[in-house]
Amino acid sequence: METDDDVPLILTWDEANSGLLGEDTERADENGGGNYDIVNNAVIPTPASQNNRAQNASLRHSWEMNYQEAAIYLQEGENNDKFFTHPRNPKALAAYLFAHNHLFYMMELLTGLLLMVLSLCEAPAVPSLRLDVYVHATLELLALVMVAFELCMKLRWLGFHTFIRHKRTMVKTCVLLLQFVEAIVVLIRQTSHLRVTRALRPIFLVDCRYCGAVRRNLRQIFQSLPPFIDILLLLLFFMVIFAILGFCLFSPNTADPYFSTLENSIVSLFVLLTTANFPDVMMPAYSRNRWSCVFFIVYLSIELYFIMNLLLAVVFDTFNGVEKMKFKSLLLHKRSAIDHAFQLLVSRQRPTGVSLKQFDGLMRFYRPRMSARDRYLTFKVLNTSGNPMLSLEDFYKFYEVIGLKWKARRSGEHWFDDLPHTTFLIFKGINLLVKSKAFQYAMYVVVAVNGVWILVETYMLNSGFSWSRFVPWSYIVFLTIYGVEVLLKITGLGPMAYFSSGWNLFDFSVTVFAFLGLIALAFDMEPFYFIVVLRPLQLLRLFKIKQRYRNVLDTMFELFPRMASLGLTLIIFYYSFAIVGMEFFADVIYPNCCNTSTVADSYRLINVTIGNKTVLEEGYYYLNNFNNILSSFVTLFELTVVNNWYITMEGVTSMTTHWSRLYFMTFYIVTMVVMTIIVAFILDAFVFRMNYSRKNREPPENPEDENGIVFEVEVSRDEALSTLELYKQTCPGLSSLSSLQGVLQAMDRGGHTSLVYLGRRSRTKSDLSIKMYEEEIQEWYFEYSRENLPLADKSLERVLDSPVCNAAAPQLDPQTGPPTVN
Amino acid sequence: METDDDVPLILTWDEANSGLLGEDTERADENGGGNYDIVNNAVIPTPASQNNRAQNASLRHSWEMNYQEAAIYLQEGENNDKFFTHPRNPKALAAYLFAHNHLFYMMELLTGLLLMVLSLCEAPAVPSLRLDVYVHATLELLALVMVAFELCMKLRWLGFHTFIRHKRTMVKTCVLLLQFVEAIVVLIRQTSHLRVTRALRPIFLVDCRYCGAVRRNLRQIFQSLPPFIDILLLLLFFMVIFAILGFCLFSPNTADPYFSTLENSIVSLFVLLTTANFPDVMMPAYSRNRWSCVFFIVYLSIELYFIMNLLLAVVFDTFNGVEKMKFKSLLLHKRSAIDHAFQLLVSRQRPTGVSLKQFDGLMRFYRPRMSARDRYLTFKVLNTSGNPMLSLEDFYKFYEVIGLKWKARRSGEHWFDDLPHTTFLIFKGINLLVKSKAFQYAMYVVVAVNGVWILVETYMLNSGFSWSRFVPWSYIVFLTIYGVEVLLKITGLGPMAYFSSGWNLFDFSVTVFAFLGLIALAFDMEPFYFIVVLRPLQLLRLFKIKQRYRNVLDTMFELFPRMASLGLTLIIFYYSFAIVGMEFFADVIYPNCCNTSTVADSYRLINVTIGNKTVLEEGYYYLNNFNNILSSFVTLFELTVVNNWYITMEGVTSMTTHWSRLYFMTFYIVTMVVMTIIVAFILDAFVFRMNYSRKNREPPENPEDENGIVFEVEVSRDEALSTLELYKQTCPGLSSLSSLQGVLQAMDRGGHTSLVYLGRRSRTKSDLSIKMYEEEIQEWYFEYSRENLPLADKSLERVLDSPVCNAAAPQLDPQTGPPTVN
Repeated sequence: METDDDVPLILTWDEANSGLLGEDTERADENGGGNYDIVNNAVIPTPASQNNRAQNASLRHSWEMNYQEAAIYLQEGENNDKFFTHPRNPKALAAYLFAHNHLFYMMELLTGLLLMVLSLCEAPAVPSLRLDVYVHATLELLALVMVAFELCMKLRWLGFHTFIRHKRTMVKTCVLLLQFVEAIVVLIRQTSHLRVTRALRPIFLVDCRYCGAVRRNLRQIFQSLPPFIDILLLLLFFMVIFAILGFCLFSPNTADPYFSTLENSIVSLFVLLTTANFPDVMMPAYSRNRWSCVFFIVYLSIELYFIMNLLLAVVFDTFNGVEKMKFKSLLLHKRSAIDHAFQLLVSRQRPTGVSLKQFDGLMRFYRPRMSARDRYLTFKVLNTSGNPMLSLEDFYKFYEVIGLKWKARRSGEHWFDDLPHTTFLIFKGINLLVKSKAFQYAMYVVVAVNGVWILVETYMLNSGFSWSRFVPWSYIVFLTIYGVEVLLKITGLGPMAYFSSGWNLFDFSVTVFAFLGLIALAFDMEPFYFIVVLRPLQLLRLFKIKQRYRNVLDTMFELFPRMASLGLTLIIFYYSFAIVGMEFFADVIYPNCCNTSTVADSYRLINVTIGNKTVLEEGYYYLNNFNNILSSFVTLFELTVVNNWYITMEGVTSMTTHWSRLYFMTFYIVTMVVMTIIVAFILDAFVFRMNYSRKNREPPENPEDENGIVFEVEVSRDEALSTLELYKQTCPGLSSLSSLQGVLQAMDRGGHTSLVYLGRRSRTKSDLSIKMYEEEIQEWYFEYSRENLPLADKSLERVLDSPVCNAAAPQLDPQTGPPTVN
Repeated sequence: METDDDVPLILTWDEANSGLLGEDTERADENGGGNYDIVNNAVIPTPASQNNRAQNASLRHSWEMNYQEAAIYLQEGENNDKFFTHPRNPKALAAYLFAHNHLFYMMELLTGLLLMVLSLCEAPAVPSLRLDVYVHATLELLALVMVAFELCMKLRWLGFHTFIRHKRTMVKTCVLLLQFVEAIVVLIRQTSHLRVTRALRPIFLVDCRYCGAVRRNLRQIFQSLPPFIDILLLLLFFMVIFAILGFCLFSPNTADPYFSTLENSIVSLFVLLTTANFPDVMMPAYSRNRWSCVFFIVYLSIELYFIMNLLLAVVFDTFNGVEKMKFKSLLLHKRSAIDHAFQLLVSRQRPTGVSLKQFDGLMRFYRPRMSARDRYLTFKVLNTSGNPMLSLEDFYKFYEVIGLKWKARRSGEHWFDDLPHTTFLIFKGINLLVKSKAFQYAMYVVVAVNGVWILVETYMLNSGFSWSRFVPWSYIVFLTIYGVEVLLKITGLGPMAYFSSGWNLFDFSVTVFAFLGLIALAFDMEPFYFIVVLRPLQLLRLFKIKQRYRNVLDTMFELFPRMASLGLTLIIFYYSFAIVGMEFFADVIYPNCCNTSTVADSYRLINVTIGNKTVLEEGYYYLNNFNNILSSFVTLFELTVVNNWYITMEGVTSMTTHWSRLYFMTFYIVTMVVMTIIVAFILDAFVFRMNYSRKNREPPENPEDENGIVFEVEVSRDEALSTLELYKQTCPGLSSLSSLQGVLQAMDRGGHTSLVYLGRRSRTKSDLSIKMYEEEIQEWYFEYSRENLPLADKSLERVLDSPVCNAAAPQLDPQTGPPTVN
């Protein structure tokens, strides 16, 4: 089909081939020659260079180069990397490849984590983890050197000009320099000074590849800020007006400490906004004059019930818009990446399609671990027209099929079809049993009875009971029932089918944990007794009964990754605040401190004698301190929940200065932003999901499709053979071919002339979005192709007319930056 | 144009005319004859019955009957009354008319209010309002008799069958009987017994006509309940699981009172859900083992930050759907009402249009107070085709134009155009001045300076200052500036233009209030000094500068009626809970009570001697009691805000029984529902509004149209004359004709041959919805007209074929119930 003298339409990074086409000398100049051989040896393990026929070798080499660049484009499309950071010459390519693999990413991540974890051991350290100054300063320097090294690689890959134009990297560089200086100062002075700049450390973590989701969250938060701040001003404005009003009305009452000065008045109303001091703040005034409650009711109605909701509404609205825009830009970026890659994969002779050979070449770079069989199946599933070549339209679906997991379709229905007849009948019986409604409902009844049992049993116990010794017989009975159920289901459905359902996995793990707990108890392993306590989790299964709960829980699982990244974002904010808190407020709070403040009671720790009994009277709030980073995190969580947060604030304020309140108030506002975003996100996700299920009310034909996307490909014996032949030609040495030979063997064994393969992947938010915005997406594509008109499709003719075509690809994206050549 | 022998297409309630058309005897049977004369005299003040020509008189009479029924249909469409409550015979009509006027509505409202207000004076009464038992019981009986009378009127109008099918009315009847019995018992025993049923009193208020918005809110709340309850169960389920877990983990710690029993454990976690006892609930466990904070963090993350938001999402989603459905059904109900009315207004001779004469007849019943001029203008504005008759399509816009306020377009631009030249120039100058940007911004600067001034001034004051005597000179200076501004604007723009803007009204009232405050101060009127304190409200004007704030504040004003009705709904819930609270918890709370509970401190009131000073140590919480209905309301508001609500709960519980907690928990859940609905409503309204303004981004041509809808009609002299002639013929005695004569006089005076009239009304939510759902509305109409195909348009032919046509109209609506005749 293809001949070896297919010539790529576009040549990339490739001055050696200039003889082949006669041009491209400019590029060679720009690269400055040199490093070419290194690249060749380092990254392209093809034996073509030993070939005698120089032209053919160089042709093959330039194809390899194109494959690699196409793979990089596709990667950039997947990761949403802007094309102006695309490597432009072999030197940059080497750095790019060095900086783009999981080893490097892990190094980035670990460095970032190390830097953050260091604060466990630094000055106000967790007692058991305290390290000497020179140890942690040295560790810090080490980590900073690693970061510097990573930055150097990035500089090499991006080039100086792009590097200084990349904002995030520049900020990182500045912070790095600052930290370097500080670490050295610490090492020299052998003591930590006030190092608030440690609060900037999360930047190193956020910048690493694996934290892309956190970066996205941060961007979204910043995008939601302007409208948020507008409404916040309104909120503060009303607060000040009411503070003046309150001061005027209540300051004559000397028994009222909340409004004695304007500052107190403002602080009281700020705290009232969080409801944390209600109704106490009202009480002195209320006891004087019952009508003064009107002031507080009006204030709370306006601020808490109206403007705060308005805040949510505004953020929700902005968030909605931002989500959609983000989805659009991602979608178009991917399309543009595919356009770029396609240009690099077509040949001069057949400029409208990608052949299997070229696709395979691309895939060897894009997914080096993928087996030859899967590469071939991916090509087949893309190729809907039946044409031997992939058209651009086919190729656009690249990202939809790239994540598929391929599996041959089972010939039989059950896993036990091949077993002897008697055994088959037994298993068939079990299968029918576990699939029956009666069995399901019987299990629900068992779970419900178990639930009531646990409740009654726990209610009957007196409180002093030692849990670690106690195993009621009912526990063993119910556990046996669950165990039998799990065994029946596994045998009846087959392990594969059983474990493919999330609910079954949940059942299985809860049951296994319960068994482990029982064993731990039997062997008296004290620390594991909490596992026994987890058994009420079994009750969660009851929520499978109702469709709405299934929806809710499914959505919960779908949301989980995003929620986790939001949680991580919150932790990063916590970290920065914890560092600042530790630097300023470490060890200012202790038992019986704060005696001058109004909240002294909460910090008290004294022995009180009542009658003839000595009782420890504890206020406990001295535990909410900033003495080390773990305590700080707990304290900050308490501040996030906002109830009684003013006790911590007033305590700290009474031991330091008035200005400490700024810290607490700022923290409240920041968490309010993040929390509002989280609420908006949950709202948005659920409303989106519910709209989606309304829009697609008809149930899927195959119930297993409900949460996944399935593609089907049929492979005939002849196709498999010829593909194997082709692969043997192009890269004979690769071991991945064995998978393709496996296909042939499977056909021989089963005596089939063809095999059907199923490709499966779980459904993502992006799939849902594509279905939701179906019509708009067509518009976006239309707009996009009009903007990129000179290249999208028509470009091919133009490119063919002019023999120099290297410039074509980079121009595709208007944001590409300065064009590479010509 | 029209002749007097036009015959109505459909005859209604009209057995007297049977000779005219030959049929209708069935109807006469049903009515049982009789009452006809009374109706005629009571409601139709037409002298036609004295006319000698019997046939013509009866024709005119049947037209009048038709007008009246059409007006009733339109009223039902406006009020969203179902058509099955439509009066079916003259007897019912009399009762209907009696029960449908503002006098009757006011009576209903006042009765309902009286019943509710009674609880101020009953047993645990507000001290100053206490009444003797026989006084308030007699008042109650009186009110109940009024309600019974209203119900009798309704029975007469609806007929027994419809009456018992009307659920709300039946519930009201049952409650009425119950209250009757109780009131009599109270009167006989001369002492109040446990009267929890008083909590049902709001039913009488809710049922009255003016509380339609509250009824709608309640319906919406009940419609949102099923999904809400589902998620609530999930919430409670997790709470129980965590309670068991918490009990297992923390009960061994004897210093931890929060988890000592399973019941305590559940209550602690319920309160924790509201965050009211955080971090206290965590502290005993936390001081033992620092890792126990994980339990609380996980619990709060799941319950508070996830499921509670889920609750909001689900309610928001349901709410959205319900709003749209409500809008749809209202729209279609109105359309159906118009269909019914149209059928009654067309004549046999011209069955496709309504003439001016008939329209005017309708309007005389529908809006008796409307002047002849306005009736004519309404007809003109509906009549877009220029045809002398209104088609059905024209008539469909009836509700859009019925609320218009008509005014002749001013010939000149300014109000001072007609003044002498010098004066004109002065006013013109002022006009230009106040309209200039510079003037506006100068005023903003003044306001801002004023704001800073107030803040600094207040800050400088020492707290003991007596406000009632103090007038700083700056106050007078700024007030003078504002006064001059208001005067300039009024003279420059003219009073009409000035007061038509809400912002100007706000300016004006704040300034006037400030002046009043100053006068009050000057005359030493102590109680008014709070007016002086309101001056920071002037600062609100600063928010006009930014578009977003203008949007927010405008939306706030638009939402106000709806918010008020939601507030009223909340108050009704409060009322019921307050009654129950008073019946059970009145006088259980007093200073130094609750010594056995953990919250005893909060109820303490003792004199403490510190050094040689005696200080009153007050816990104040004894003020949050259920001793009378006003205190109960304040207490319930505190419970709504939820902070520290467990202090009240534990206090009451310690003085009564465990079961008291049920009251507080139920109240929390109920307010949670209502509050979630309120949040969902605000979210929905704002997101809707923002979507709307995005959809209609282009600014309106006339800036005044921004918040209003304007129609324009031109009336020529000939038209006015002929209309006047027509009106004189049809109802010569009416004084409303003078308005039409006024039109002619205005033309004569100005020497014009025609006048242009502008009809204005403010934009409502319904207008916005119509614009938002434009496309869907067309679908709904299409569906609706398909369902009602036999009648909507084609019916006319069918009806014309069969001479008996009374049955046609009632069949229009499928929910009409049993057809009236035939």
